[in-house]
Amino acid sequence: MGNQLFRKVVIFGVGLIGGSFALALQRKNAVGEIIGFGRSSQTLEQARQLGIITRSGSDFEAELGDADLVFLATPVGQMADIMARIESCLGPHTLVMDAGSTKGDVVEYAYRNLTAHIDRFVPAHPIAGGEQSGAVAARADLFHEKKVVLTPLPENSADAVARIRLAWQLCGARVSELTPKQHDEVFAAVSHLPHVLSFALVHNLAQRENRDLLMSFAASGFRDFTRIAASSPEMWRDICLANRDALLVELHQYMQELTALNHALLEMDGARLEEIFRIARSVRSNWMPQ
Amino acid sequence: MGNQLFRKVVIFGVGLIGGSFALALQRKNAVGEIIGFGRSSQTLEQARQLGIITRSGSDFEAELGDADLVFLATPVGQMADIMARIESCLGPHTLVMDAGSTKGDVVEYAYRNLTAHIDRFVPAHPIAGGEQSGAVAARADLFHEKKVVLTPLPENSADAVARIRLAWQLCGARVSELTPKQHDEVFAAVSHLPHVLSFALVHNLAQRENRDLLMSFAASGFRDFTRIAASSPEMWRDICLANRDALLVELHQYMQELTALNHALLEMDGARLEEIFRIARSVRSNWMPQ
Repeated sequence: MGNQLFRKVVIFGVGLIGGSFALALQRKNAVGEIIGFGRSSQTLEQARQLGIITRSGSDFEAELGDADLVFLATPVGQMADIMARIESCLGPHTLVMDAGSTKGDVVEYAYRNLTAHIDRFVPAHPIAGGEQSGAVAARADLFHEKKVVLTPLPENSADAVARIRLAWQLCGARVSELTPKQHDEVFAAVSHLPHVLSFALVHNLAQRENRDLLMSFAASGFRDFTRIAASSPEMWRDICLANRDALLVELHQYMQELTALNHALLEMDGARLEEIFRIARSVRSNWMPQ
Repeated sequence: MGNQLFRKVVIFGVGLIGGSFALALQRKNAVGEIIGFGRSSQTLEQARQLGIITRSGSDFEAELGDADLVFLATPVGQMADIMARIESCLGPHTLVMDAGSTKGDVVEYAYRNLTAHIDRFVPAHPIAGGEQSGAVAARADLFHEKKVVLTPLPENSADAVARIRLAWQLCGARVSELTPKQHDEVFAAVSHLPHVLSFALVHNLAQRENRDLLMSFAASGFRDFTRIAASSPEMWRDICLANRDALLVELHQYMQELTALNHALLEMDGARLEEIFRIARSVRSNWMPQ
């Protein structure tokens, strides 16, 4: 027990992310007990039976004061409320971490609702997940070789950030740091915009009378391009609204790019088209997912 | 030999498509001899050693008069020239077929350069291929369960179309028919536009000073969305120019879709965003590549 990173971890939202974090830390013997909170007692009981949590909690006062880490692994939409409800119960050394896909909004909630505890709140975004969800999909190796982005606050102590970093490293993740603003700009460009573009393509085809004919001739290029259009509408609505400003910047840039392509097509400018495609292919071919 | 579909087939361009067609027909004992023409004698010798062609040809007059089928499997850019050079050598019963990704342009070339033989020219587009190319990548099952679209001309005899259809069915393909115009409109929507959009996204990121940082955080959604941005710049330049009109229509529609999304974002209209995403997810989830 002496080299356990956390004696007690409390997880809000024992789904794919929260559950996998719990399993990964347990596999490393890095945690004593794990208490789960959530809106569904059925889900919590399932998580207990799966060995993800030690037990489910019922009383913030009783569970949070001696917790080493509180992990907010719920949808971002629930976080402001949870922060407000837990703040007065947190122990002086309790670390708090989230796992939201956007950081500017979560940080804003924390400054407002975890005010007295802001030095112990370390925002995090694990780049993992995908189509599956729920505790049954949780697995100890979900974060193996995946990126986790921390967006530490100026108020955070070096020790707080180091412990959160170590926790994710024990999960097998590769941890990097950005500011919350950098984070949201980066992910607007490489994740949020592509999702919106993919949704937009399928939505546009869906409006047409001949959509069944069209879709019947779609092949593997279409399949891959539109895979992310099968993502959760609620989650992506929230991400778009939370990261609206950075996403609008990206959308404008992209529409300018399409305007230039439209112009090259109108002019039958084959050299320009080929140049655009060649640069894209070169960058894409040299990129490897990390 | 009595039930062979073709006694003699001549293939221009013994690459992935031409070579796989040859191997597939041979596996069904559907062809007597296969003669290859191409710009590289080295490629033709390789194709012969791989058992794809019986021998390479050197004389149009000698090879084309008694051919049952001439298959134009070169890039579309070479087809007009080849048609002009072979027309006077074709036998009265020789069928001619292409494999171009666009049909309006190839049909126009045929009306101009295969004028006297137009009733025997059946345009075809096998929906197969991908990243690999060349005779070494050819395989007998490339077209298995893949779609092949024929765009017969009003001048074609029923017999000519039936024989071309049967040839592709022997390759294991599922054959459908569209008019050349329908074909180009359908593929502008489900193939050409997605390719342009994917190239555009990567090209836009490639212009930025922080592109390495951005790309280092790209994950599996980006990977799939941009897979087709690694396609051949020359081939896609040619497809875009050949199918410019239909592609411009699609591009305009898509930019209108993005304008609507931009508006919903500006207005923080979460209900509208969710509705667009929900319709897209529903259509995408119910679609299966065929």
